[in-house]
Amino acid sequence: MSLIAEHDIEAIAAGSAIYGTGGGGDPYLGKLLAIQTIRQHGPVRLVDLDHFDDDDLIVPIAMVGSPSVILEKLPQVEPMLAALAALERHLGKRAKGLMSIEVGGINSTIPFCVASRLGLPLVDGDTMGRAFPELPMTLCTLQGILPSPLCIADEKGNVFTAEVADIHAAEQYVRTITMEMGGAAYLALYSMSAAQARKTVVPRSISAAREAGQALFDARRQHADPVAAVVRATGGYLLYKGKITGVTRTVDGRFSFGHASVQGLDSHAGTQASVKFQNEFLMLASEGAVLCTTPDLIVLLDLESGEPITAEQTRFGLRVAIVAIACVAEWRTPAALELVGPRKFGYACDYVAVEKLVLER
Amino acid sequence: MSLIAEHDIEAIAAGSAIYGTGGGGDPYLGKLLAIQTIRQHGPVRLVDLDHFDDDDLIVPIAMVGSPSVILEKLPQVEPMLAALAALERHLGKRAKGLMSIEVGGINSTIPFCVASRLGLPLVDGDTMGRAFPELPMTLCTLQGILPSPLCIADEKGNVFTAEVADIHAAEQYVRTITMEMGGAAYLALYSMSAAQARKTVVPRSISAAREAGQALFDARRQHADPVAAVVRATGGYLLYKGKITGVTRTVDGRFSFGHASVQGLDSHAGTQASVKFQNEFLMLASEGAVLCTTPDLIVLLDLESGEPITAEQTRFGLRVAIVAIACVAEWRTPAALELVGPRKFGYACDYVAVEKLVLER
Repeated sequence: MSLIAEHDIEAIAAGSAIYGTGGGGDPYLGKLLAIQTIRQHGPVRLVDLDHFDDDDLIVPIAMVGSPSVILEKLPQVEPMLAALAALERHLGKRAKGLMSIEVGGINSTIPFCVASRLGLPLVDGDTMGRAFPELPMTLCTLQGILPSPLCIADEKGNVFTAEVADIHAAEQYVRTITMEMGGAAYLALYSMSAAQARKTVVPRSISAAREAGQALFDARRQHADPVAAVVRATGGYLLYKGKITGVTRTVDGRFSFGHASVQGLDSHAGTQASVKFQNEFLMLASEGAVLCTTPDLIVLLDLESGEPITAEQTRFGLRVAIVAIACVAEWRTPAALELVGPRKFGYACDYVAVEKLVLER
Repeated sequence: MSLIAEHDIEAIAAGSAIYGTGGGGDPYLGKLLAIQTIRQHGPVRLVDLDHFDDDDLIVPIAMVGSPSVILEKLPQVEPMLAALAALERHLGKRAKGLMSIEVGGINSTIPFCVASRLGLPLVDGDTMGRAFPELPMTLCTLQGILPSPLCIADEKGNVFTAEVADIHAAEQYVRTITMEMGGAAYLALYSMSAAQARKTVVPRSISAAREAGQALFDARRQHADPVAAVVRATGGYLLYKGKITGVTRTVDGRFSFGHASVQGLDSHAGTQASVKFQNEFLMLASEGAVLCTTPDLIVLLDLESGEPITAEQTRFGLRVAIVAIACVAEWRTPAALELVGPRKFGYACDYVAVEKLVLER
């Protein structure tokens, strides 16, 4: 157990922006809200799953919506509390612990707001070990844990409790209701027992995010290379350095689709790379070769500051280091790749583990 | 209290098609389902509100969607039961009685299915004394009774419990979710205590529908004029006779908008009339004069058989009698007219009570 105070949130937000692989919403907004809440209501206990009894109810809290919209609709704590309360009422059971659905941007920090407000512990773990754009893309799905019953709330006082027939219906209804709510909404979903959580969640992923964020801060303070520090802290691979020369982006309610073109720098001078995204960065290719694909993590860092760059923030002129991090082993099975592999997102290539791709070059 | 068996459903369905003023879904489908259910699970007790204690929970059950879609998606009892069960779970209270939200087409008969299945009594009354196309258009709204919490279910096993911030949000979300459910869905909404119901509902409206339907059947059996029988049984006014010469109709998910052109017959020969509808018939005009508008009831009957004709069934060549019935007094206040008067539907005229319009001609 560790106690998460204001300054820890800074490191968790920075680290989550790294593990968020460009998605999960702007980490800045979630960070501000978490810090403000902790200042008012006290620090949060970050606990391992062995803290809980088998039957204890664990509830992930998440925000859903297009990152472009979330930038305009500032996150609020009340609708998160409303979504959780509705789920507890429906289940007839109180949550014993909260959890992040993903380690990414806003969704790794906003559960701290609810945990602080209610004095509940937060699980040191998440259901992806990264961020993904669609509701079924969690390790829960591979374990047969459904998102339903799920509760979805907005800042206007609307709260829906949904029992959905299957996971695709869940995705579809959440998308529809989120659009109706103005493009961003708050979810309590994928609730599970601690026993189920122990089989499902990526352990220590919040701590890993904190450590990566802290490594970044330390490197900056020591005037060391921040990109190298992130690579070291995450066990990642520095795949490419370059300058963004163009970004194509379309926003359709819940998703930001697009790609960034990158012109190589330093040892990559004279080459071009392309990073494709659907909320998250999903595919990196250069000169006709695939360098890294989902479910491995593709991270863009500002070349000077090491600051993680979200897909929303990509723009002409940014000089970036592109780092890859191997995903957790659970994402590399055939069933998992069917759910989150490159073909799922429409890319015509098979998944090859990033460490293998690195060796082959 | 009266016991409603198979043959009563026939009369209630026919009478509801009259009071449904062309809307409320095809009465034929609801009738078949109610008869089938009563055959299997037994008759339904139709009771007055004094049957209940003040605190008893009364739940209206309704089907929502474009009549055009309901024709293609046959009604089912299971999702009605699912919507009711979800509402009871949410409220932590069992329904002591069920109710029709409107006397109109499908919605006056389908609550009998649930009542028969569960052995619950059905209130002899409804919240409109007719049918209207939009969720807020009930006497509940005038009494400050909200549709929320409401439950909406479909035949695929999806069930939503919605707490909505205001009545316009309720209408909007029900519309959106209904569209997502395929254009038709099942609702448990506007739940109220028996004490509230006593102040709100139109009493005896189901019995009135049964009497009107029975009068129609009797006239046919006796080879009497069925139109005259309906006019007598409902206290209505025969306003126009003619042949439908054209129908313009657009369907947008929940609504069928349009108008029917009618060429006068008999004493109306040489004149033209027009009936406008949004699911229900809402405005009758002829030769530049308004003959009847919402909230008074406009009813189209087949000139020979007296069979009520829904807006969906209007088509070239039908010979119709157009009958008006005065609405209940509660719909004639300024607040009520703001909710359901002609201007609410976009017609540029003020409401004048139909009995006054009849006297003026």
